[in-house]
Amino acid sequence: MKIEPKDFRVPEGAHVELKKWPTEVKKVYRSKHDYHKILDDHVAALSEQQQLLYSSRRHAMLLIFQAMDAAGKDGVIKHVMSGVNPQGCQVYSFKQPSETELQHDFLWRTNRQLPERGRIGIFNRSYYEEVLVVRVHPELLHDEGLVEPINEAAVWKSRYRSILDLERHLHENGTRTIKFFLHLSRHEQRKRFLARIDEPEKNWKFSRSDVKERSFWPQYMTAYQECLSTTSTDHAPWYIVPADDKDNARLIVSMIILETLQKLKMSYPETSDDRRQELMAIRRQLAE
Amino acid sequence: MKIEPKDFRVPEGAHVELKKWPTEVKKVYRSKHDYHKILDDHVAALSEQQQLLYSSRRHAMLLIFQAMDAAGKDGVIKHVMSGVNPQGCQVYSFKQPSETELQHDFLWRTNRQLPERGRIGIFNRSYYEEVLVVRVHPELLHDEGLVEPINEAAVWKSRYRSILDLERHLHENGTRTIKFFLHLSRHEQRKRFLARIDEPEKNWKFSRSDVKERSFWPQYMTAYQECLSTTSTDHAPWYIVPADDKDNARLIVSMIILETLQKLKMSYPETSDDRRQELMAIRRQLAE
Repeated sequence: MKIEPKDFRVPEGAHVELKKWPTEVKKVYRSKHDYHKILDDHVAALSEQQQLLYSSRRHAMLLIFQAMDAAGKDGVIKHVMSGVNPQGCQVYSFKQPSETELQHDFLWRTNRQLPERGRIGIFNRSYYEEVLVVRVHPELLHDEGLVEPINEAAVWKSRYRSILDLERHLHENGTRTIKFFLHLSRHEQRKRFLARIDEPEKNWKFSRSDVKERSFWPQYMTAYQECLSTTSTDHAPWYIVPADDKDNARLIVSMIILETLQKLKMSYPETSDDRRQELMAIRRQLAE
Repeated sequence: MKIEPKDFRVPEGAHVELKKWPTEVKKVYRSKHDYHKILDDHVAALSEQQQLLYSSRRHAMLLIFQAMDAAGKDGVIKHVMSGVNPQGCQVYSFKQPSETELQHDFLWRTNRQLPERGRIGIFNRSYYEEVLVVRVHPELLHDEGLVEPINEAAVWKSRYRSILDLERHLHENGTRTIKFFLHLSRHEQRKRFLARIDEPEKNWKFSRSDVKERSFWPQYMTAYQECLSTTSTDHAPWYIVPADDKDNARLIVSMIILETLQKLKMSYPETSDDRRQELMAIRRQLAE
């Protein structure tokens, strides 16, 4: 049975229960050698599609990555996007917001970095943090300047609506959005944290706060479930990508991006008759 | 009969016919001297409210000015806002969009300049140009990278919706938006254009393209009517300000801004007991 993008897509209106979605599936590749071959093929095809995106300038593509710590977001971005011309591709990592950013509405800092037509924009974390980490730690709302007392339920509802409105607006104005949740098991996260402690060259990746966040696992799963159920739409779908096998996750993500780009059926802009005549005239001058 | 802000407000859902809205009303002032006195009072009160806005950091205020050429937008901004601390106030004039701006969705360039909490942001022209000048000259859409063929009716509908969604999002995140249409008669515009030609020190304000746009007057009025009817809401209202008398228009605008700020019922942040004790301890140290 062939693995396809739609296997991982959250249908609009679906009610997501994360424990029913696998963190591991049948491998797309047969061997490490086969993995590298498939990845190279995907990256080459992606590079070609990105070139088309850039020359036709009709669409932008926005890729959003969200996950628990150590799920492999950075690795996916590195391995899937490294073959793509950096002129047509921009990655933004959103960490703790600055004071200036907190003084604006919660979509402001990401809105500034939206990709222009012709480019692929990658958000490593995104405005979704505002209904994920902030939902698990609602005390963060007090730094966001909301009028007190804060009605939390109303805040999440309002934020979902703002996000849905934004993504519809982007779609109608040429941006194609795909959102990835890299779905890691709690057990696999533990293994990766231990490796970060035990292997000296991975020590830099580890921080004590990661372990603290791990203790909020059930709260995060609840926040993700509601987020994925509420904000997956036909024009900006969420994909839940099994992430316990890093190599497999990379192939699945690249397959999904590729399919979305190919569905745009882009081609190089056609040369008009006038333009063709102009080019021929220049050609004759050069030939003299 | 007293002139009040609500006289000029477009109620949500109203159907606006501009010829029924006056371009001139009873004067708020009795003499030039009286005008200066009232304006000074308004500016002083505005300055105090802005100080409160800045210290409480709960709200931002967004003022949008739209009008036909020579209606007095720059003059209103200059005379009403000049007494306000520039640290808490920022003005952006949106002219022809740059190529980079055209490559993004139509709200991107103005979104970047939204005021943060504590500040008053002034848009001299705004994203509304996208349903006004672009509507009158739909050929401009071809520079905006939309997928062809363009269904114009669908574009305006989609843009109104995006604007309404944005303004609701801003409201729910602490920004208070007021929109002003300075309503000038065609006759008064002619007089002001002639003055710009006849008075050498006003020549710099005049350009040939102004006269060209004047010839599209009926199309602009149609575009404004639909825009004002569709996008005036309780939380982001349009005010149609009679603009044939510049001084009167300035007093009306300042009165409306002032009323909106006063309705926020802002006060200086209260000092907590802990903070009070800390301040008293510092005080004792300084006293030694």
